[in-house]
Amino acid sequence: MDAAALIAVDWGTTAARAALVGRDGRVIASREAPLGIQAVRDARFAEALDALLGDWRDLRVKRIASGMIGSRQGWVEAPYVECPASFDELARRLVATPGGELVVVPGLLARGEDGLPDVMRGEETQLAGAVGDDETVLAVLPGTHSKWAHVAGRRLQGFTTFMTGELYAVLLAHSILGRLAQPGAAPDPSGRAFARGVAQGLREGALSHLAFGARTLALTGALDGPDVADWLSGLLIGHEIRHARQWAASRGLGGDRVRVIGADALVARYRSALAQSGIAAEPGPPDAAVRGLVRLARHAGWPIEATA
Amino acid sequence: MDAAALIAVDWGTTAARAALVGRDGRVIASREAPLGIQAVRDARFAEALDALLGDWRDLRVKRIASGMIGSRQGWVEAPYVECPASFDELARRLVATPGGELVVVPGLLARGEDGLPDVMRGEETQLAGAVGDDETVLAVLPGTHSKWAHVAGRRLQGFTTFMTGELYAVLLAHSILGRLAQPGAAPDPSGRAFARGVAQGLREGALSHLAFGARTLALTGALDGPDVADWLSGLLIGHEIRHARQWAASRGLGGDRVRVIGADALVARYRSALAQSGIAAEPGPPDAAVRGLVRLARHAGWPIEATA
Repeated sequence: MDAAALIAVDWGTTAARAALVGRDGRVIASREAPLGIQAVRDARFAEALDALLGDWRDLRVKRIASGMIGSRQGWVEAPYVECPASFDELARRLVATPGGELVVVPGLLARGEDGLPDVMRGEETQLAGAVGDDETVLAVLPGTHSKWAHVAGRRLQGFTTFMTGELYAVLLAHSILGRLAQPGAAPDPSGRAFARGVAQGLREGALSHLAFGARTLALTGALDGPDVADWLSGLLIGHEIRHARQWAASRGLGGDRVRVIGADALVARYRSALAQSGIAAEPGPPDAAVRGLVRLARHAGWPIEATA
Repeated sequence: MDAAALIAVDWGTTAARAALVGRDGRVIASREAPLGIQAVRDARFAEALDALLGDWRDLRVKRIASGMIGSRQGWVEAPYVECPASFDELARRLVATPGGELVVVPGLLARGEDGLPDVMRGEETQLAGAVGDDETVLAVLPGTHSKWAHVAGRRLQGFTTFMTGELYAVLLAHSILGRLAQPGAAPDPSGRAFARGVAQGLREGALSHLAFGARTLALTGALDGPDVADWLSGLLIGHEIRHARQWAASRGLGGDRVRVIGADALVARYRSALAQSGIAAEPGPPDAAVRGLVRLARHAGWPIEATA
């Protein structure tokens, strides 16, 4: 344990993950707890951190965190940095908690050509961990709020959000689309319903119209109840890919190669949908958040080497 | 009461409305009850009808109903008629309940160019009541599931659905967009937030991206909490209008004039959004459902005159 140089915390809405990192940038050990900011009552973040770290809390090493812990509802607000922003700049804008327990990576703000602001917290750190110094990358971070990002020249040039995961959950649970969905039944293992949804989502049309297909296809017998959820998932992801590709093209990116950053079943869905769209998907590292925290700590001048 | 020729029932999911109609096609009186099909337990529709009609139940007049009462979850299933369908054809496909208590108007099924089926129940009757024999009309029926329809030559040529009202309700109540929305606060009486949302919705973009603006605009102080709901409403309606216009154009309709059918505050919102889109809105009759039921009864050969 004496080789430890850093504690890196990926602190989100529902969970918190801590990694103990050596001077050589490698992860020595990691811990996880359901202590996301929503689970912390009365702003008792210091206690939550102690609970997460356990016996690591007595180690005399620096601590850095990213994610919703830096939001207005978190421990300390780390104001958004405007895009384009270099990873160096993020490292210069780390914000310490009042008691100095750790420093927090700021989120990012982008202003889209459509006039809408866009925000991320946590994904900027994953991008720092998933894109090398000399790369130009179009990346997607699938999730409740999927992010597509353009990284080039060690800078986050821009990004855009799609509420794909949240729409899927909310429509199935609370709209008429869930009524015929039979979520208890086994989904189609062949992936055919998902692929049909992707194909539909890649076509022109308003999502508020297309989504109604989850009802009408089931109503007319063209889609089995157990397949409705997979079809809707494919529709939403296909729709996202179609529009993200337009967004990438508007930034001069080819959009025929995408780095998919994440570590779960959702990434597999995206890779399948991207393949169907004729887009080559390359996986990002599964530990992008820790790698990003290490990189930002290094940019901040802390004594730690780059992750191998 | 002896002049009565017909009882016309608009029987939907949450409410049922009955009108007593004279031989001259005029409404003599009307009654309403919260006896929509969702409120009827154990298929006791005959009792619900008696409760709705009160002392009208002893009148020896014919009865006709439209709406969800003809769905699989209703009293008797009136199978969908495929578009294009004439109002005459609808009148030939009336389905009687097993006990002969009334006849039910069938719903309509359309197959879109996007490969998705589409369905309506009840709106076909409102269209029969809102479009004259010699008219060619692009109509919108705003609601939970907004319908845009093309009527020409006494036929329903086609239609398309947008889940605008349901998305609005579900996103505000169950997604992150509702968090900053302060629904208790008074909405902007100037209509400015709504108009801003309409303008945004009329622009290119995926709804799963654009809707996130309801959060980011509020988060960055560009939209006040009490205005979030109005902005989101405008966004969804603007997005619907943009895509409905494309749909109309694909059918050879100009789309610069739209008949708005309905009778509540939602219609005012649509008229305002249509004006902002440069589309002339003409109001349909507020009693379109009753007029449509009278028209279909007449087409069925019942002894009743056209509504004046």
